[in-house]
Amino acid sequence: MNFDDINIPGKLVPDNYLQLGLSAQRAKQRSFKELLEKRKLPVNGWPDEQIEELVHQLSSLDSNNFPHKLGLGEREARIACRLVARRHYNFGHGIGRSGDLLEAQPKAAGSTLLARLTNALILDFMKTVGQLPSCAGCFLVPICTGMTLSLCLQSLRKRRPRARYVLWSRIDQKSCFKAITTAGLEPVIIPCKAVQGESLHTDIELFRERIEVLGAESILCLYTTTSCFAPRNSDNIVEVSKLSQQWQIPHLVNNAYGLQAPDIARQLEKAHRVGRVDYFVQSSDKNLLVPVGGAIVASFEEKRLQDVASTYAGRASGSQALDVFMTLLSLGSSGFQTLIQQRNDNFIYLKEKLQKFAESHGEIVIDSTDNSISLAITLGTLDDAGQNSNITRLGAMLHMRGVSGTRVVTPAQNKTIDGHEFQGFGSHRRDLKVSYLTVAAAIGITKEEIDKFLGILDKCWQQLKQKSK
Amino acid sequence: MNFDDINIPGKLVPDNYLQLGLSAQRAKQRSFKELLEKRKLPVNGWPDEQIEELVHQLSSLDSNNFPHKLGLGEREARIACRLVARRHYNFGHGIGRSGDLLEAQPKAAGSTLLARLTNALILDFMKTVGQLPSCAGCFLVPICTGMTLSLCLQSLRKRRPRARYVLWSRIDQKSCFKAITTAGLEPVIIPCKAVQGESLHTDIELFRERIEVLGAESILCLYTTTSCFAPRNSDNIVEVSKLSQQWQIPHLVNNAYGLQAPDIARQLEKAHRVGRVDYFVQSSDKNLLVPVGGAIVASFEEKRLQDVASTYAGRASGSQALDVFMTLLSLGSSGFQTLIQQRNDNFIYLKEKLQKFAESHGEIVIDSTDNSISLAITLGTLDDAGQNSNITRLGAMLHMRGVSGTRVVTPAQNKTIDGHEFQGFGSHRRDLKVSYLTVAAAIGITKEEIDKFLGILDKCWQQLKQKSK
Amino acid sequence: MNFDDINIPGKLVPDNYLQLGLSAQRAKQRSFKELLEKRKLPVNGWPDEQIEELVHQLSSLDSNNFPHKLGLGEREARIACRLVARRHYNFGHGIGRSGDLLEAQPKAAGSTLLARLTNALILDFMKTVGQLPSCAGCFLVPICTGMTLSLCLQSLRKRRPRARYVLWSRIDQKSCFKAITTAGLEPVIIPCKAVQGESLHTDIELFRERIEVLGAESILCLYTTTSCFAPRNSDNIVEVSKLSQQWQIPHLVNNAYGLQAPDIARQLEKAHRVGRVDYFVQSSDKNLLVPVGGAIVASFEEKRLQDVASTYAGRASGSQALDVFMTLLSLGSSGFQTLIQQRNDNFIYLKEKLQKFAESHGEIVIDSTDNSISLAITLGTLDDAGQNSNITRLGAMLHMRGVSGTRVVTPAQNKTIDGHEFQGFGSHRRDLKVSYLTVAAAIGITKEEIDKFLGILDKCWQQLKQKSK
Amino acid sequence: MNFDDINIPGKLVPDNYLQLGLSAQRAKQRSFKELLEKRKLPVNGWPDEQIEELVHQLSSLDSNNFPHKLGLGEREARIACRLVARRHYNFGHGIGRSGDLLEAQPKAAGSTLLARLTNALILDFMKTVGQLPSCAGCFLVPICTGMTLSLCLQSLRKRRPRARYVLWSRIDQKSCFKAITTAGLEPVIIPCKAVQGESLHTDIELFRERIEVLGAESILCLYTTTSCFAPRNSDNIVEVSKLSQQWQIPHLVNNAYGLQAPDIARQLEKAHRVGRVDYFVQSSDKNLLVPVGGAIVASFEEKRLQDVASTYAGRASGSQALDVFMTLLSLGSSGFQTLIQQRNDNFIYLKEKLQKFAESHGEIVIDSTDNSISLAITLGTLDDAGQNSNITRLGAMLHMRGVSGTRVVTPAQNKTIDGHEFQGFGSHRRDLKVSYLTVAAAIGITKEEIDKFLGILDKCWQQLKQKSK
Repeated sequence: MNFDDINIPGKLVPDNYLQLGLSAQRAKQRSFKELLEKRKLPVNGWPDEQIEELVHQLSSLDSNNFPHKLGLGEREARIACRLVARRHYNFGHGIGRSGDLLEAQPKAAGSTLLARLTNALILDFMKTVGQLPSCAGCFLVPICTGMTLSLCLQSLRKRRPRARYVLWSRIDQKSCFKAITTAGLEPVIIPCKAVQGESLHTDIELFRERIEVLGAESILCLYTTTSCFAPRNSDNIVEVSKLSQQWQIPHLVNNAYGLQAPDIARQLEKAHRVGRVDYFVQSSDKNLLVPVGGAIVASFEEKRLQDVASTYAGRASGSQALDVFMTLLSLGSSGFQTLIQQRNDNFIYLKEKLQKFAESHGEIVIDSTDNSISLAITLGTLDDAGQNSNITRLGAMLHMRGVSGTRVVTPAQNKTIDGHEFQGFGSHRRDLKVSYLTVAAAIGITKEEIDKFLGILDKCWQQLKQKSK
Repeated sequence: MNFDDINIPGKLVPDNYLQLGLSAQRAKQRSFKELLEKRKLPVNGWPDEQIEELVHQLSSLDSNNFPHKLGLGEREARIACRLVARRHYNFGHGIGRSGDLLEAQPKAAGSTLLARLTNALILDFMKTVGQLPSCAGCFLVPICTGMTLSLCLQSLRKRRPRARYVLWSRIDQKSCFKAITTAGLEPVIIPCKAVQGESLHTDIELFRERIEVLGAESILCLYTTTSCFAPRNSDNIVEVSKLSQQWQIPHLVNNAYGLQAPDIARQLEKAHRVGRVDYFVQSSDKNLLVPVGGAIVASFEEKRLQDVASTYAGRASGSQALDVFMTLLSLGSSGFQTLIQQRNDNFIYLKEKLQKFAESHGEIVIDSTDNSISLAITLGTLDDAGQNSNITRLGAMLHMRGVSGTRVVTPAQNKTIDGHEFQGFGSHRRDLKVSYLTVAAAIGITKEEIDKFLGILDKCWQQLKQKSK
Repeated sequence: MNFDDINIPGKLVPDNYLQLGLSAQRAKQRSFKELLEKRKLPVNGWPDEQIEELVHQLSSLDSNNFPHKLGLGEREARIACRLVARRHYNFGHGIGRSGDLLEAQPKAAGSTLLARLTNALILDFMKTVGQLPSCAGCFLVPICTGMTLSLCLQSLRKRRPRARYVLWSRIDQKSCFKAITTAGLEPVIIPCKAVQGESLHTDIELFRERIEVLGAESILCLYTTTSCFAPRNSDNIVEVSKLSQQWQIPHLVNNAYGLQAPDIARQLEKAHRVGRVDYFVQSSDKNLLVPVGGAIVASFEEKRLQDVASTYAGRASGSQALDVFMTLLSLGSSGFQTLIQQRNDNFIYLKEKLQKFAESHGEIVIDSTDNSISLAITLGTLDDAGQNSNITRLGAMLHMRGVSGTRVVTPAQNKTIDGHEFQGFGSHRRDLKVSYLTVAAAIGITKEEIDKFLGILDKCWQQLKQKSK
Repeated sequence: MNFDDINIPGKLVPDNYLQLGLSAQRAKQRSFKELLEKRKLPVNGWPDEQIEELVHQLSSLDSNNFPHKLGLGEREARIACRLVARRHYNFGHGIGRSGDLLEAQPKAAGSTLLARLTNALILDFMKTVGQLPSCAGCFLVPICTGMTLSLCLQSLRKRRPRARYVLWSRIDQKSCFKAITTAGLEPVIIPCKAVQGESLHTDIELFRERIEVLGAESILCLYTTTSCFAPRNSDNIVEVSKLSQQWQIPHLVNNAYGLQAPDIARQLEKAHRVGRVDYFVQSSDKNLLVPVGGAIVASFEEKRLQDVASTYAGRASGSQALDVFMTLLSLGSSGFQTLIQQRNDNFIYLKEKLQKFAESHGEIVIDSTDNSISLAITLGTLDDAGQNSNITRLGAMLHMRGVSGTRVVTPAQNKTIDGHEFQGFGSHRRDLKVSYLTVAAAIGITKEEIDKFLGILDKCWQQLKQKSK
């Protein structure tokens, strides 16, 4: 609605009062103009009302919301349930067109605008807040991180139809691995190296060896992971990227929740500088605090993204773009910067507290320097002669008391995924000796949560110890 | 909230008034109980308040909504923007677990309940409203129809790793075809046969021939389509299913918007009875009137579904399940039955009106008997010596006047998709002679829309005719 | 938000798609313009989104919603709870200024616009839908009907400071009477006359007599009631208005739910034509289907309204104006006309059905011709020798079965209100002989409700009869 | 909804996951139970979801929300517009019954509960947060402060029908005075005394004199005001209460925004201890940060409240109760305590800053010790030879820059209200010499607002000074 062309009589409201009200709209209108024309993340978050006003205006540009709309096709974005229409702000047409996520949708100018604007804001986010100035392009894919990684692999296959191997630095997270098998490709597992018997690093030598053995042309890509559970470290993506460049094999990075960690950003930038990174993929929910459901595929070369976008066979949900769009506008870059800074501080705080706890209980926090999100504390003294009953009980006790996200890892857990057997699954290695507990300080965590957690951990520990007696 | 264990003093409200209020809750509570215990689509739609009450209660079972929650993991479903949290009713954890869409999510009992309940209600819908009593199982996949078809192909590949061909009855809808190439498989295109030069039918003989030539073991599956634009007909899935059974080759049916057409349901049931259908996939938005974003994969054999579910690499968006859940409860089976009946009536109405229009303008409505959703009317008399300028202008004119969904198809449009060339793209055939316009009567269409459309069509036609003079 | 001055690049959305979207906004913008410039009730209701867009735009004109707002006063419309802000669309400043409900509020151009626009729409409603073309002005008062009547009396007192009597045609509805005592005035009760021993009519002669006895100058006003429970009839406002004019005594009409009854409108118009009506007051919830809380004071002379408006001591809630505004826009005049027509039809339907019921049970529906909303059916045959236990049980039984709004009236109920004793309270008369049940067909009632009610009434009746045996 | 009696099969969700979710509900259920059973303001605010759950449950107890509802009366709380129903959480029946705000409404157990619970919470708020432990009862009236004061006067009149004078300590706030004339009573204005020629105090001697002259029995009540604009001070309610007790004349206190100032609470408590206070009335919006529309009438003697409640002629809006209820639960006592503490600190901060500003500009902040909310700074040096054009321009300039709530007061403004003439209106005195500006630090103000305001004041001042040169 636009007051400009409406002649509001003084009988309704005195003109001087009205003018004051109208002039207050100008700042808001400037924000809209700037956002649409410059497509940069605003520094300060917008109030809810302003976000909703924009979203409503965008959705009114979609044909299903035209007052004179006549729908004679098979897909007219009719929404039967008012509650559903309301929660989607009347967006119904999704994004993309006939199997290209980045194409404009003729029936839906508003959805198209929303999707592209969201991608532009994410790009600005990556470059500034995410400290990845070399990032050349990115877009939101409304499927999970694992499926997005799979989509990247599928689009690489179109370029390298004869290559079938994916060289993958082992990380014991199921969907990460499934991304390969779902695409119908052959995983070649590169186990990590344990340094000082404990923290896990990328085995660059083995990567090289496998490339030589299998032959570069038969390898679809090298596939690494940054953010992960301690004591595994972020992969040495710098060295892998050099191999990638040297052998001209694409390099795919699973950066699931790495956008919140500046040191990972530095490694990505360096890898790009000294070697090759084709795509790096991150979860939208883990980094941007939206509900589960989307991932961001990014590249240092914009044109590479088109291949991925056109691999998605169909029109996709616009719901994830809406979540990310609203969240980015709501927090602004300063809001996100604050969150990232707090996470950083809280990680250090958690580490110190956990080390103190470990010391006083005869345990250690495993030194995984290249992991700035997750920590692992050994549970050796809880061990009841390898029975692990105390140790698994600890996990359950924490869970029962409201602690979520910690994981107890014990030796000798084997698992078969799509025909591939993993010894010591969960520990990223075959030969784990001492059980441990992983704890993460992810974006959004508060100091209060850390304090309460440590209090609970202590109580549970004491209870278990007493029982053992 | 539960009034049962609260002792509300008469000072707050006289007991007889309160009892009247409380007893009115019992019918509602019975509905909840019945829904969760029997998992059947209610006959009558629920009021909005009741739907929201259930949804809120379910989301409160997810760990991110626990009051005493301490999140020490990397994914804690924190939602930063209140507007986003609100529109998702505080659901944040998505559905599925570690690459299995049907597994329960330990952090999210509510999301798990929602997802499974939704699948149960969809199954009931398919069996009763959808008239597919033999349907043995189904689930909602939060990706589009094309990608879901691709997921089915990928899961079939796990069972038949050496088969690489997909025999596909041509339909000129891009994502339908891309489902094959995205999965990295080899499409074998089976052109349709034109009957009486016009309407298009499945070429069963050619299917058989190709199977014999390529060898059954090298063929991943036969891939047919039911709902489609006229004058193409629904594929002869009954005969293809016989081939499928005979040669033991899986059979995948793209039933995109076929749930709204009882005759397609009958064909599916028959195909299952006399032959083999492994999966049939339908769009959730086209059939259930929710926003774009999901598809339903169904089977006559429940265990086959697990393969597809576990091919999805990761945890998925729960947003689509929420939409479908709310919509199903809001309309109830009677609401949907009414919509389907109306669509049926409106298709007949549209057909009659269009035939009258055709007659009076020297055109015909092409006789595609096995298509009960879409109609094609020839545009021969508009043709200006093969220039097609009048004909394409008609499309634009309709669009400008609020008509969406109609498609003008002209001869000699070629297109290459993922390296495969299609002659006469859009017409499902190489040798189209006369241009035509397609019009569909899909679920939700009103008689009023049809009348207005015909009025507009008539006006545009006259304008074009006059200009031509 | 206004797209006009924003330069949206083709990179974001192709210009032809965008133009289609923008042109669809023009019809909406025209509706806004027309509403604000002409201030007439739209014929067709607006969609929810359009209503909310306007309301949001209006509230953004209030100073509490200015982005650069600095509040250094004692009342800055800060809203602490987001849920509250949201449900009020961020309106916080209320309406009116320093004790004048019709004055503009300097801090709140939007609230002012909303309030005045609402009053303009109500006026249009009264003239057209309400069939009161002579109505010269009206405004919404955010207090109940009784208090609004009291406010009218208080404002009349300012004009006639020495007059203290209010001549009131008895109606047994408490707040109606309290309106007089709350204002500190002296009620003079004019009992109704029973015609044929049953239906109750205004005693014009007694009115005249009292005027002569007390003296016109000592009488503040004559106070009549239109809509009421049968068998009382609408007061003979035409004759009272003649007395009012003859003696120059103001005339106040309680038209609580009379806007839904065209025959009452006719009487009001006639009373104005042949005599004098100063104010007529109607409930907003009973006529416009909004929550309880407001009343409309109207007059055939616009300037008289100012007196009432400036009697309200303070700034008032804007919540009622918002409800009425949204409801009027949502239904449009056609929506309300339909409701009023349906009510009319349903009244006739209810009357016929009730008469049949009465006949078959040896009762009668009392003939109150000048009451077109409420009906009274005698309960003589249920009477158990004057014990009334059966009769009161009937009321409770109906209530327990979900019937609300019916009233059982039995003889000999006395009540004292503010020192005034009423014999036979509830029946509007001292000498009720036979108990009866009142039933109303008010706006919004459905045929289905009537049918179900009659079924329940029949069942209860039979049970009571059987017990009596 | 209640999970307790529903047997959720493990097929839907594993029982251990479900149990975790269900046990998390118990704390919430305990909060509901405690609130309804103990009726105390919770210490910590509730999350939005919990508030809405309770509100929805309450509204479902009202008959208009019963699924089997049959409405055969004239007022059935049907709500025509969904948006309106939604914003009222389906509450439609309002509060009170037939002219008693505190009575239960038979059709609406939920509304009744809500209203009474709200009153109970407000009472707890008054006693604890408001530091008025002797407060014996209070209730929310859904009309503004002025009308509520008028309602109190009207209810006092019922007790003292022959008394007609109201002795009122002058305060230049219109609705405050109108409360008397609207009730049809005779105001006797007691001018304030200027101490040291500047700050204004209650003239106790004059009160005494007037009582003696008019006679106690002819005086309805003494009427004082606490919170007000500087340089007027809070009335000396302690001394007035002594007069009240001595002469047995009721004492009404306008405590409009006094709940936020602990020193006023102390005075009220003392006045009650040493003398008599019948009612004290406060604005709900000014103290509780809800939209304009309600007031709280409180008393140190519970039974006195009934008189006021039963003076309201009709059923009233429940909207204000809903706002207050949600706000109290949202902030909890700790939230409000924090706000009150901040206001206190900010008042001191504002005072210091303003004094510095005054000093450096040759002005003074008038010393009104008994006013802890509002401050007055003289504008003597801006005066352009009594033209006041500079001074009024200052007001406009501040307003234009987003400052609201400050007031410029100049000498010699006269005003007539309801026939009573006020010389020097706005200054609470006849003989103002020097213009001044009032500034308030009310609840919710931030330090940032104060700083920005002072910056703007300084700039405006300089501009005016420069122009004058």
